[in-house]
Amino acid sequence: MLGNHKLGACLPTFGSCADRYCLTGYGRGGKTIEEMLDLAAQVEGLDGLELVSNWHVNDDNIDYMKRLFTEKNLEVCMIVPDLWTQEKWGRGSLASTDPKIRKEAVQEVKRSMDWAQEIGCKYVDVWPGQDGYDYPFQADFQDAWKWLRDGIAECSGHNKNVKLLVEYKLKEPRTHCFINSAAKTILLLQGLSNVGALLDIGHSMAAGENIAEAAALLSDYSMLDYLHLNDNYRLWDDDMMFASVNIPEALELVYWIRRLNYGGWLTLDIFPYREDKLPAARNCFAWLETMFEAVEKTGLERINSIIQTADATQSSKLVREMLTT
Amino acid sequence: MLGNHKLGACLPTFGSCADRYCLTGYGRGGKTIEEMLDLAAQVEGLDGLELVSNWHVNDDNIDYMKRLFTEKNLEVCMIVPDLWTQEKWGRGSLASTDPKIRKEAVQEVKRSMDWAQEIGCKYVDVWPGQDGYDYPFQADFQDAWKWLRDGIAECSGHNKNVKLLVEYKLKEPRTHCFINSAAKTILLLQGLSNVGALLDIGHSMAAGENIAEAAALLSDYSMLDYLHLNDNYRLWDDDMMFASVNIPEALELVYWIRRLNYGGWLTLDIFPYREDKLPAARNCFAWLETMFEAVEKTGLERINSIIQTADATQSSKLVREMLTT
Amino acid sequence: MLGNHKLGACLPTFGSCADRYCLTGYGRGGKTIEEMLDLAAQVEGLDGLELVSNWHVNDDNIDYMKRLFTEKNLEVCMIVPDLWTQEKWGRGSLASTDPKIRKEAVQEVKRSMDWAQEIGCKYVDVWPGQDGYDYPFQADFQDAWKWLRDGIAECSGHNKNVKLLVEYKLKEPRTHCFINSAAKTILLLQGLSNVGALLDIGHSMAAGENIAEAAALLSDYSMLDYLHLNDNYRLWDDDMMFASVNIPEALELVYWIRRLNYGGWLTLDIFPYREDKLPAARNCFAWLETMFEAVEKTGLERINSIIQTADATQSSKLVREMLTT
Amino acid sequence: MLGNHKLGACLPTFGSCADRYCLTGYGRGGKTIEEMLDLAAQVEGLDGLELVSNWHVNDDNIDYMKRLFTEKNLEVCMIVPDLWTQEKWGRGSLASTDPKIRKEAVQEVKRSMDWAQEIGCKYVDVWPGQDGYDYPFQADFQDAWKWLRDGIAECSGHNKNVKLLVEYKLKEPRTHCFINSAAKTILLLQGLSNVGALLDIGHSMAAGENIAEAAALLSDYSMLDYLHLNDNYRLWDDDMMFASVNIPEALELVYWIRRLNYGGWLTLDIFPYREDKLPAARNCFAWLETMFEAVEKTGLERINSIIQTADATQSSKLVREMLTT
Repeated sequence: MLGNHKLGACLPTFGSCADRYCLTGYGRGGKTIEEMLDLAAQVEGLDGLELVSNWHVNDDNIDYMKRLFTEKNLEVCMIVPDLWTQEKWGRGSLASTDPKIRKEAVQEVKRSMDWAQEIGCKYVDVWPGQDGYDYPFQADFQDAWKWLRDGIAECSGHNKNVKLLVEYKLKEPRTHCFINSAAKTILLLQGLSNVGALLDIGHSMAAGENIAEAAALLSDYSMLDYLHLNDNYRLWDDDMMFASVNIPEALELVYWIRRLNYGGWLTLDIFPYREDKLPAARNCFAWLETMFEAVEKTGLERINSIIQTADATQSSKLVREMLTT
Repeated sequence: MLGNHKLGACLPTFGSCADRYCLTGYGRGGKTIEEMLDLAAQVEGLDGLELVSNWHVNDDNIDYMKRLFTEKNLEVCMIVPDLWTQEKWGRGSLASTDPKIRKEAVQEVKRSMDWAQEIGCKYVDVWPGQDGYDYPFQADFQDAWKWLRDGIAECSGHNKNVKLLVEYKLKEPRTHCFINSAAKTILLLQGLSNVGALLDIGHSMAAGENIAEAAALLSDYSMLDYLHLNDNYRLWDDDMMFASVNIPEALELVYWIRRLNYGGWLTLDIFPYREDKLPAARNCFAWLETMFEAVEKTGLERINSIIQTADATQSSKLVREMLTT
Repeated sequence: MLGNHKLGACLPTFGSCADRYCLTGYGRGGKTIEEMLDLAAQVEGLDGLELVSNWHVNDDNIDYMKRLFTEKNLEVCMIVPDLWTQEKWGRGSLASTDPKIRKEAVQEVKRSMDWAQEIGCKYVDVWPGQDGYDYPFQADFQDAWKWLRDGIAECSGHNKNVKLLVEYKLKEPRTHCFINSAAKTILLLQGLSNVGALLDIGHSMAAGENIAEAAALLSDYSMLDYLHLNDNYRLWDDDMMFASVNIPEALELVYWIRRLNYGGWLTLDIFPYREDKLPAARNCFAWLETMFEAVEKTGLERINSIIQTADATQSSKLVREMLTT
Repeated sequence: MLGNHKLGACLPTFGSCADRYCLTGYGRGGKTIEEMLDLAAQVEGLDGLELVSNWHVNDDNIDYMKRLFTEKNLEVCMIVPDLWTQEKWGRGSLASTDPKIRKEAVQEVKRSMDWAQEIGCKYVDVWPGQDGYDYPFQADFQDAWKWLRDGIAECSGHNKNVKLLVEYKLKEPRTHCFINSAAKTILLLQGLSNVGALLDIGHSMAAGENIAEAAALLSDYSMLDYLHLNDNYRLWDDDMMFASVNIPEALELVYWIRRLNYGGWLTLDIFPYREDKLPAARNCFAWLETMFEAVEKTGLERINSIIQTADATQSSKLVREMLTT
């Protein structure tokens, strides 16, 4: 029922998730990359994993990683350049006020693109999470925009075999990230080639967006390239299990995935801090399957006809029927 | 399946809901009290309606209202003293800095209690929505607390046949209301007799509470007397249809309603601004029935045993099973 | 110190502000247009007022209004087409699913442009507040986007003497408005001529934006045409007095107004529900003057040099110095 | 001007603050306890530091720590029992469903009380941050409440020379913490002796409270024992510098500190992730001093007389005058 979608996961799904209070993590997950892959390989239907450069992939281990993934029969669905795990990125990467840091950031993205190509991965995910500010009077928005744009332009031209995606987020780790909405991502990328967007459900919700609407907007600009699945309570990127809190909106997104003919990866980006990893991942995919089946059974046409009425009582009744019958 | 609960509704459920932009309302509802009752009487299973004093019930029409409700075979499940629809309450009612206004507020509550007795209604709902403040340096929190406490003490002793309930809300119409959480309501009422709390789902969620937790806390202090059903997007009292947005938490509340042996009214407090009133009300009750059935079918014991594991993957799986099987 | 900025106000600044609970308003303001103008004329420095079509200006009274404003020595700084005060707009105006309503909305905007020209006003403010949705599965985002775009395109070409501005807002009166951020407004308007944006501080903050950053972005796309001043607690469009809550961000905005060479109107959009109107308006302008003076005294260059450090302790210290010395 | 208040700080103020993305921290701070104390000793006016048990103080180093603080001429103003930095507390401490964990938590608090006595510190701060839940159907609220109450009761009786304070927080590290508001803290502690509350500004704001109102409520129940100073954007515990975002509410709090005759510690709980530590701490105290001076200069009586008017325009004008003249 999940059609021809490939299912992926970020590594924290299987790792020992830490937060600022419990820096060694809450246990229960794999500590090494090998342990995390072992866990991942046990999730039925999982096709691939994301890797973060520097942490998981680098010049020294690229061959080994390639072999490891082949052995486990898993793909690398994404390489995420490390622009956020080291002290040096603290005040920004592509949009740092320090030209040396900006240059290093560009290098990291380019190297990630090359590693991606080598390992057979089609995308890198630029998440400029450190590019923002925390306080009033701390950022020159015009400089930052220009630097982000220039950096991405330079990177996107580096390797045409790997597409550069930008992942937006309203906040965290900064109280304000520059690239914070679907619309702003589109503006940033307009006119560039070999670029697109990564829509993370939780980032979108915490930015005040309706996720299905964000997906439709990105799709209309041909920038809906990749999806991160998770959930939260709207105010923070809690990275919870998919559909564990917001069911109607998750269901609406699944309908739009079908309607927009999105054919890309469906990748978990969850932090199951205190949960056992295998049931956590399986639970997300079970919800996903339930929702794809509900949309299939109800039919795009019928759903669409109800949407056209703009009548909320029919909408809410539709959700009830899709879930319970 | 709804057991021995009585089902109620506030009048805006069937009225011409207005907001600050469209002051004449969005149509579709009844304009007169008679029209609203006509609509209400068409909702299968509905047992009663709430009335607001001054607006809907007063010395002049109390006999007529009694007759009207008898004719329609409906109860008055609540009388809400008008402490918020008139200019004079703008800067507070029971906690106004003006002693004359405080006295008028107490009078309005007392008169509402008497009307309630006369019309066979067991409760009045004191919603001190105007008692709060909008700006820093605008309120003396200690005075306000004392005035609220004194006013409620005086009213609660007025008529022992009618119980005085307090309905808390974080904000709106003030940016800060004094009585804004379940715990604060308990503190306010401690030591008084003939008092209790009204838990409005939407107020609770917009106050950052988990609604089931608020219900359990109020119940532990013997103050869970009455429930308002609706839904919202967590940040504002949107007064949407029950379970239209937040399904897992609504389901959790229904479980706790059963577990806590709450036996009171289940009353809609929705503002279906743009919706036809009958399907809106019916949709809420259909969701409610679906959830009561799901709890019944699954069994309190099984649900409780999963809660005891404190294991979120089992919790999320439970929600999926309860809804879809 | 306010340089060559003209100071304006929306009429609720001087009116009897109502909300959904107190539909007749909290008194204290003018009831008629004449009374509101009388109040406005007493605010030193005020240059103009905004009018809403249908409510305040229409074919029947345009000549009278012209005369009235001339008498009071006030300009009409904006005409806002009424796309939101009537039942018929409840489910949308320019993006209604009903083609008849869409057509009426276009007509209302066009007529407003003509009234604007006649009364010597350079702008109309299209605020598509009813164009959105409240529930999941209630909107076809692609249709809506197209209709909004088509409607605005048609209107903007109607009268080249009057510029069509779009005012975005995240929510209210709908739980989701389609045009909800600065970036989305830019996307919507790209390629059209005779259009721009209206940045309302409160809308921007409640949308999760930093207001100064929104101003800079709009300015970079040559769409920063008009400003609405007010304040709120970030989660709702409380329409409070300017700088009454968020001082550092208001100050940062004033700095950017200067830096971006914004030369347009500075117009109050406040709802002083419970306040006397004259001191409320005066208090806003006094804060504004304080902040313009602080920026002037400190100097753009010095402020800019601190921003360039990206060092938050210097930023916070700067705010303290600007305010207190 | 800070009267007889002692000024304190939590250790992250001088440490290498980490978050879930940058687990080694953003540098700039002390890495060892000795380095952090060295930094602290350079902040003029700082009287003491908080320590976390297990991390900073334990049976092995208590004598050494005592000596270290004496050398630096600093007090230990608080010992915080470690109920949150280790994997074992992940699903709760005092309210864990595992009786063995609950017992260990009680032991940790008791031991912390003894260390506190030994080192001459009057308080321990029980912050039950891991006691909560993340998902619906994951917690038995009644059990949790009982366990928390029992645990605190047992601990508070352990050592009468050290007072047990409870620090509430709405969320983080759990999406829902059980003890989440001032009012709930009071309910939890009612009837116990040797207990009180710790009011953290940021926790209070992120819980939707007005901080001054929370202080007044706690004071009325004789539970306002200790204050944590910081700031945030209302939706998350950003642990920013005091008064860097919300100036009017910080000023209102300072007024209430004076009016309530709060005489306890004023302790920074900030995470200056990317900032140099000394200027960050100094900037907070400079803001604090500015505000104490403003209150002193204006006078409690005059401030109080404006509050009594309940007139917001006077309130906002007062803030402007207090800051700028």
